Amino acid sequence: MSLDRLSRYLPCLSWAKGYDRATALQDSLAAATLTLLLIPQSMAYAMLAGLPPIMGLYASILPAIVYAVLGTSRALAVGPVAIVSLLTGAALAPLFPQGSAEYTQAALTLALLCGALMLLLALLRAGFLVNFLSHPVISGFISASGILITLGQLKHILGIKSEGVTAIELVRTTALALPDTNLATLAIGIGSLVFLYLTRRYGKSVLIGAGIAPSLSAHITRAAPVVAVVVTTLLVIALGLEHLGVPVVGDVPRGLPSLTLPMFDLPLIMELLPIAALISLIGFVGSVSVAQTFAARKRQRIKPNQELIALGGANILAALSGGMPVSGGFSRSVVSYDAGAQTPLAGALAALGFAVVVMLFTPMFESMPRAVLAAIIIVAVLTLVDLKAIVRTWNYSKQDGAAMVVTLVGVLALGIETGILLGLSLSLLLFLWRTSQPHIAVVGQLPGSEHFRNVERFPVVCSPIMLSLRVDESLYFPNARYLEDRLMALVSSHPQVRHVVLMCPGVNLIDASALESLEAIAERLKAADIQLHLSEVKGPVMDQLKRSDFLQRFGGQVFISQYKAALTLDPDTTLATLKHTGSEPKTHPLSEEIHHEKRP
Amino acid sequence: MSLDRLSRYLPCLSWAKGYDRATALQDSLAAATLTLLLIPQSMAYAMLAGLPPIMGLYASILPAIVYAVLGTSRALAVGPVAIVSLLTGAALAPLFPQGSAEYTQAALTLALLCGALMLLLALLRAGFLVNFLSHPVISGFISASGILITLGQLKHILGIKSEGVTAIELVRTTALALPDTNLATLAIGIGSLVFLYLTRRYGKSVLIGAGIAPSLSAHITRAAPVVAVVVTTLLVIALGLEHLGVPVVGDVPRGLPSLTLPMFDLPLIMELLPIAALISLIGFVGSVSVAQTFAARKRQRIKPNQELIALGGANILAALSGGMPVSGGFSRSVVSYDAGAQTPLAGALAALGFAVVVMLFTPMFESMPRAVLAAIIIVAVLTLVDLKAIVRTWNYSKQDGAAMVVTLVGVLALGIETGILLGLSLSLLLFLWRTSQPHIAVVGQLPGSEHFRNVERFPVVCSPIMLSLRVDESLYFPNARYLEDRLMALVSSHPQVRHVVLMCPGVNLIDASALESLEAIAERLKAADIQLHLSEVKGPVMDQLKRSDFLQRFGGQVFISQYKAALTLDPDTTLATLKHTGSEPKTHPLSEEIHHEKRP
Repeated sequence: MSLDRLSRYLPCLSWAKGYDRATALQDSLAAATLTLLLIPQSMAYAMLAGLPPIMGLYASILPAIVYAVLGTSRALAVGPVAIVSLLTGAALAPLFPQGSAEYTQAALTLALLCGALMLLLALLRAGFLVNFLSHPVISGFISASGILITLGQLKHILGIKSEGVTAIELVRTTALALPDTNLATLAIGIGSLVFLYLTRRYGKSVLIGAGIAPSLSAHITRAAPVVAVVVTTLLVIALGLEHLGVPVVGDVPRGLPSLTLPMFDLPLIMELLPIAALISLIGFVGSVSVAQTFAARKRQRIKPNQELIALGGANILAALSGGMPVSGGFSRSVVSYDAGAQTPLAGALAALGFAVVVMLFTPMFESMPRAVLAAIIIVAVLTLVDLKAIVRTWNYSKQDGAAMVVTLVGVLALGIETGILLGLSLSLLLFLWRTSQPHIAVVGQLPGSEHFRNVERFPVVCSPIMLSLRVDESLYFPNARYLEDRLMALVSSHPQVRHVVLMCPGVNLIDASALESLEAIAERLKAADIQLHLSEVKGPVMDQLKRSDFLQRFGGQVFISQYKAALTLDPDTTLATLKHTGSEPKTHPLSEEIHHEKRP
Repeated sequence: MSLDRLSRYLPCLSWAKGYDRATALQDSLAAATLTLLLIPQSMAYAMLAGLPPIMGLYASILPAIVYAVLGTSRALAVGPVAIVSLLTGAALAPLFPQGSAEYTQAALTLALLCGALMLLLALLRAGFLVNFLSHPVISGFISASGILITLGQLKHILGIKSEGVTAIELVRTTALALPDTNLATLAIGIGSLVFLYLTRRYGKSVLIGAGIAPSLSAHITRAAPVVAVVVTTLLVIALGLEHLGVPVVGDVPRGLPSLTLPMFDLPLIMELLPIAALISLIGFVGSVSVAQTFAARKRQRIKPNQELIALGGANILAALSGGMPVSGGFSRSVVSYDAGAQTPLAGALAALGFAVVVMLFTPMFESMPRAVLAAIIIVAVLTLVDLKAIVRTWNYSKQDGAAMVVTLVGVLALGIETGILLGLSLSLLLFLWRTSQPHIAVVGQLPGSEHFRNVERFPVVCSPIMLSLRVDESLYFPNARYLEDRLMALVSSHPQVRHVVLMCPGVNLIDASALESLEAIAERLKAADIQLHLSEVKGPVMDQLKRSDFLQRFGGQVFISQYKAALTLDPDTTLATLKHTGSEPKTHPLSEEIHHEKRP
């Protein structure tokens, strides 16, 4: 196998070749920054999934290394991300009590399942399945996720207990538990929220105003979560807040995760399968779109199928090393990019950094308050909520807007899977509905020319004995029957017509259903003494038609151009119109009626 | 309300106006023939659904009258039909023992449900849902039905007991019961089969050969089932075959069905809902396609939505009057058409004929052997089995062929619902896959002209700094991401390009997902110092784009023609090419690579 072929399967080879000392230095510095900045985030996202915070760190080690070797993006950082963590929590919460060993085990099984599904999608080259997830559905889901996550984290800010998979349940249980609010926890939570919000909003401009270079200012601002974590942890230790009931991360095992195989529990796997499929698709979509955004800056190319392999491998390794489902994250990648990472090696080196942290520094997390992690999550996910997008989308297209609202409300009120399924079904139905009614124009000859145009838009001349129809869409099963209905309706209102010519310049495909419809149309027309013809059929479509006996049986001709068809079938009108140059073309007998008939 | 508007809801008014004595005479004669010929068929189809044969007669009375009033087809005959009866049996068999009162009651509930669903579809104008049922799926299902029905009726021919919802179960239980075969029943069954087959195959030509007029010959041939029923019934009576264990129809209640409301049993309704939806869609599709075939002969028009209302009403009345789910049938309609029916009144009069039969002549059915009814069913449904269609479809398109085979095998081996669902999912996936990868051509300028053509097919000239791409498909969510991938891939391999022009003459729609993709593309290109432009955008698409802020934000221009775009963005190359008339156009830098890159 040549190096070229090999590097298709191991994209790292393409950058490893030219790797030099200067790049190595930049990557190492970036890795150090990355490790430091991502520790709180990774722990917070594990907590969001209802898992011990340490699992977020585990999931940042091997998966990141796998992705560095197999991924095609040079900038994507892989690890725990908000949406995937939310979905993980939603999958596991109904099955096992949070904090139990079964819950943790099931998270590993889920990661393994996600990895296997991604590899399967790659193998079947079925990445196109993500096309099912229309933008309005994803956008509605992401906004709803931001709201759900925030509601779910309020308990940590307040120091209370609440639970639920829908917004309604979360609000209800939170409201009921409000009297139990722990004031010390609340102080830490609110303090962290305000600090994180202010630094995110104004930090950079204040620092720039103080004369610090913009890039350094951005860097410092981004370290705010680390500052918040360190300060609040020190506060807990100094004031003994743990004894005042402030929940902390607690005892964290030191050392690398041991490699274990998740149990093969078929009933559990069947139960997790639907949400694993959802995580795989959503993780993949999110990851690829982040990767493409970064790749564009350097005119690099992302190969979606190879990305499925890389993400699949990353999730399988996450499952084997005590982690949780992972994906490529936007905020992770921004941090990495801004820290000056040059190649995916930076991600791998940061993973080693995580390994060192897990081996040596876990005792430092013991007194870290959970409220600060919740604050980090909330400030991060609130940017996901984009309600203006609903207005924007609704203005652009009522149908897409409806799909977005249905998804958003569905996810909040009925749960994630139901909401997404509702949105998807609506998208698919609306799509089918739109594509099922292609534009079919009655066309006539432009006086003085060989051109045929829509009678509704041009002063054209139509033959009294020949009906010319232009179909502006491929013919396949969603519109096959509409074609029948529409054509027979047009013909039934023109008893004088002897020939119908279907003009096919916009037809890229005729599938078996449409072929059947064409046969039915030809046969029905023949019963009414009308002959069907085709014109301007594209090469590939003609090749396929020749593989059936339609062309022999339908009795009509296939004309190279609509003009040729007109010249053959109604030479008198056609030649008269060609010579006609006056400004007063005959009105078309159909045009009036068609103007009044709205396109259905 | 004007008569015109009224006749939209009551299509019968349109023919009732000109109704005269001559037409009435023809209709009455046709009705008499119709009643006589359809009695055995209607009873046979009720038996096929596992119901008492009399329910087939009940279902031929009120539903036919309702359809005559509400239906838009002048030729369609409504009543029990084979496929719907098969589905009814498949729905009820797993729930209740055949012959029990619950089984019969559930059939009424099912009919009511089908009627309600059809009316709901009409109300939502959701008849387009039948587009989900692609032709290969329907064709595969119908062939499988023919086989399933035949296997299921073998027990009546053999005089044994067998059961099952899949072909495998039916074959197994039939084989096990073979030793119990009743020879007298077998003799009647085989005799009827041979007689019916021979008359159907050769009857008409033999009669014509004997000098009888073709139309009369066809008529006589079609009466064969009546002859078979009469002869075998007389044989049973004369030879006392009932005492030899030949199963007969038995005691049939005399008199009109009493009007009753089926019980409202919610769990049962939920259980029947999926198959009721299937019956509604399949019944509707079959009915409309038969109606359109007949309407075409007389250039009449079928209104699908009104058909849903008429069929819905027919099913509800079937439920209220002790019938079973009904639909428009092809063989029923042929009989009616050939008998000389002029208007739907013939159907209504035939319904009155059925009422008379039910009131007066039911004792005549007592000794009718079930084997002859089974023989009638088998000879009728074997014409449904069209295995050659698989070869034909496979040759035309592997994908459509695969959908057909999967449906056929699925229905036979796994059951009707599973098989159809498998086929539908495959169709939908293949459709999505096809539509998700639209043809995107790199275009260049034809030397000496203002035309832009595909670089793969024409010797065109491309600007070194401007990449022109023509999209031959509407842009919506199934292909939005593909557009991103493909465009970024093309750009990443052309670092010299400064402008990308998307030529949109084939784009009939840009939905919110595609808009999002265009925004992402514009942004990513901008990050690489490339500007996106559009050209030849259609009017309606432009109107919609103006409802978003894309046109302000994307930074590019929208050109009226690709030539204008080229003239603005790269005047030197464009003007040089316009003047160029030589036979040796410059080779396009992309063309070689593109020739080697297969369209994915």
